[in-house]
Amino acid sequence: MKIDERKLTLLCDFYELTMARGYFHSEIKNKIAYFDVFFRRVPDNGGYAIFCGLEQIIEYIKSIKFESDDIEYLRSKKIFDEEFLSYLKDFKFTGDIWSVPEGTVIFPNEPIMTIRAPAIEAQFIETFVLLILNHQCLIATKASRIVRAADGRIVSEFGARRAHGADASVYGSRAAYIGGCHSTSCALADKMFGAAAGGTMAHSWIQMFDTEYDAFKTYCQLYPNNPTLLIDTYDVINSGVPNAIKAFKECLTDEQRNHCAIRLDSGDITYLTKKIRKMLDNAGLTGCKIVVSNSLDEYIIRDILLQGAKVDMFGVGERLITAKSEPVFGGVYKLCAIEDEKGITPKIKISENAAKITNPDFKKLYRFYSRDTGKAEADLLTIYDEVIDTSKPYELFDPNYTWKRKTMDNYDLREMLVAIFKNGECVYENPTAEEIRAYCKNELDSMWDEVLRFENPHNYYVDLSQKLWDEKHKLLRQGRK
Amino acid sequence: MKIDERKLTLLCDFYELTMARGYFHSEIKNKIAYFDVFFRRVPDNGGYAIFCGLEQIIEYIKSIKFESDDIEYLRSKKIFDEEFLSYLKDFKFTGDIWSVPEGTVIFPNEPIMTIRAPAIEAQFIETFVLLILNHQCLIATKASRIVRAADGRIVSEFGARRAHGADASVYGSRAAYIGGCHSTSCALADKMFGAAAGGTMAHSWIQMFDTEYDAFKTYCQLYPNNPTLLIDTYDVINSGVPNAIKAFKECLTDEQRNHCAIRLDSGDITYLTKKIRKMLDNAGLTGCKIVVSNSLDEYIIRDILLQGAKVDMFGVGERLITAKSEPVFGGVYKLCAIEDEKGITPKIKISENAAKITNPDFKKLYRFYSRDTGKAEADLLTIYDEVIDTSKPYELFDPNYTWKRKTMDNYDLREMLVAIFKNGECVYENPTAEEIRAYCKNELDSMWDEVLRFENPHNYYVDLSQKLWDEKHKLLRQGRK
Repeated sequence: MKIDERKLTLLCDFYELTMARGYFHSEIKNKIAYFDVFFRRVPDNGGYAIFCGLEQIIEYIKSIKFESDDIEYLRSKKIFDEEFLSYLKDFKFTGDIWSVPEGTVIFPNEPIMTIRAPAIEAQFIETFVLLILNHQCLIATKASRIVRAADGRIVSEFGARRAHGADASVYGSRAAYIGGCHSTSCALADKMFGAAAGGTMAHSWIQMFDTEYDAFKTYCQLYPNNPTLLIDTYDVINSGVPNAIKAFKECLTDEQRNHCAIRLDSGDITYLTKKIRKMLDNAGLTGCKIVVSNSLDEYIIRDILLQGAKVDMFGVGERLITAKSEPVFGGVYKLCAIEDEKGITPKIKISENAAKITNPDFKKLYRFYSRDTGKAEADLLTIYDEVIDTSKPYELFDPNYTWKRKTMDNYDLREMLVAIFKNGECVYENPTAEEIRAYCKNELDSMWDEVLRFENPHNYYVDLSQKLWDEKHKLLRQGRK
Repeated sequence: MKIDERKLTLLCDFYELTMARGYFHSEIKNKIAYFDVFFRRVPDNGGYAIFCGLEQIIEYIKSIKFESDDIEYLRSKKIFDEEFLSYLKDFKFTGDIWSVPEGTVIFPNEPIMTIRAPAIEAQFIETFVLLILNHQCLIATKASRIVRAADGRIVSEFGARRAHGADASVYGSRAAYIGGCHSTSCALADKMFGAAAGGTMAHSWIQMFDTEYDAFKTYCQLYPNNPTLLIDTYDVINSGVPNAIKAFKECLTDEQRNHCAIRLDSGDITYLTKKIRKMLDNAGLTGCKIVVSNSLDEYIIRDILLQGAKVDMFGVGERLITAKSEPVFGGVYKLCAIEDEKGITPKIKISENAAKITNPDFKKLYRFYSRDTGKAEADLLTIYDEVIDTSKPYELFDPNYTWKRKTMDNYDLREMLVAIFKNGECVYENPTAEEIRAYCKNELDSMWDEVLRFENPHNYYVDLSQKLWDEKHKLLRQGRK
């Protein structure tokens, strides 16, 4: 099932259409616009983010088509002329797109996607590109943090019922998998993306039977190869665990007892899992795993593990699927240049908020890797036609505190943005979610721990070339005049 | 476009399917289950919530169908037998559903929806019912708070680009409209639900032209009847406002000048809007409205209005469409009774967390209205077959602090849950979003201000009848044995 099995062409801010009509009736119609997608800060005061959502953007751009009922709707607004509506009937994207691959570690204020297209087209796709990226980058980044907190233990995404609608569940599950989750509770996400679906049982399963023991026994008989029993419907220590032990011992072979589990969904996780672990071990069920859930996130997971909680797997729901601690990924879509017969003219947006000032011009994004350590050291934005001689040292400087300087030596340089669309044709083959997940893990391995930690992470360098810095400051001075 | 133009049947937690197979092969197959949907606390420590999402649940339930590729997917998991898979091929919902209407003011721990169906069916729809309600109740409730803070000023939902995917944008926009927003930025939400789409322009519009003034003039000429000009691309006071004034004066008639507006998207809103208002008034543009946006929510809106900001309309994006301050609406779906040839057996879920203990049995939900004031005074849960003689006083009591009592006299009693499905057939006609929005406004008017305020709202009474309270406590004692 692809996202374009619905009609999403009109899923745009209305102003994309009013502006489109304006461009259509002015000389801007014939100009080429360059837009950058970037974000300004990492949620949760983190040090890095994970890029995610490109596949759905590609599907959307391929599927754009104004159907007759869309045209009819627009006509009913009484502000769009027939000439413009006729134009929309044949509208399609004919431009170029470059993007970092999904699963890439990304940082604030660098272009993670650049769009070059006739102004109307480049402007029109803004809303959808942003809503997909802002959602999936958010969840992939949150998942990456949670998986890191679990310190090698399995994390499964359990969020479907608390997601912001159907897409938030399915594509959130995809993003969580790419960000490092092992599996999902969502059957459809498994079917669509191959993030293995698993699950235990609801409290209602237990309640349906006359006794908790009957419910456990029935489940073990049905799924003897990997039963997980939910033990907190009535009383964890006095009923749930003893009944689970009894059911496992009666229904499972020795081998099967190494693949069974109990799940705890309430109460004091640290206290109870220590007690449960002892009860299971004393009963000879040393292979029985302990799964916990109940409003977990990276902070709670880190805390209970520090306290010695005995947990083999975390089921993480609402705080992952909504990125509860900070549910907004502030990706933006900003004009950086215009091209016409005279060439490329860089554009800047100045703002009352200094953080909202943009980096002008058509740019390239590079990442420096140290040849000694293999680790990423800094990212660099240049104007598109700059050439870097990698045989020579390169001096980086902080774009705000320009006296902070660092000379790179013995480095590999990687160009981060790869071609996705060329003249409206998709030239990129999407990897599978599993491949993206593996790539993402490699990406994280290329980062210093100082960048990845939760509190006060190292502020990874995203610098401008001297040429770009000079151009930006020239435009800033002109603009404030 | 309906939600069922996609195949969403498998959008469920995997355990719904593993449990379904278990029920299928046991005597539970022939039992009728009763599930309640309720939530435990209002987000943002609020005093009330708005019910929203029923229409999409109805569409989903009507559309459930396991297609051959769904069956193939399930077969590939190697745990579902052919007899069960055959059963799924003809699966449909054949039960009954009661619900409060969309737009109803709802409170914690009362059933806002009750499902009565063969156990497998009632269990299966859990995930989807919850994800729709948890999303739309969340956003409608947040919108209601934001609209209340705006104190009569217009609030438009601008959130598409920060929503958690396409559904979160479109259905979030629907919920925001029902909760009281005047309009939306999202064209598709307008087309689907009639929430009027509006919008201004992006900064890119300004940047596309050689000068800010050219951009403004062109826009005024294109849309002279209601141009809104974005004034913070370069410098609000020294460039944006003077250029806007010039464009309005040159391009608009006197009448049109009463429908123009400027929009501010950055900087100190209070300081700038006061200054802008004076500049506009001094230029004779007293009819020009001021629209503000930039990470607003109910707290910021209340604060800047208290400070005397001059605002006519708020554009509210990310903090509304994600309910940023608390993005989870914790609706749950809990078994409350089982019915077989012997009759209805009430069921309870006990828990280590006292707040997670459920109210047992098939119930009715009533709301008491004072005949003197017309205001809602309390809600009451009873067992389904209890009769209340409204000609007599009725004594309510707090289910936790049972010595807190209140006698209702001279009241009207309203049964809150209405029939939606009967034997699998939908017996309910969905109102339009506009009708629901009007109903929601009436609902809010029926509440005391003490319930609606932001800080320390009155804890609206949701009480149990004596009979239900007795039954619950009997089951609690039995369960803990």
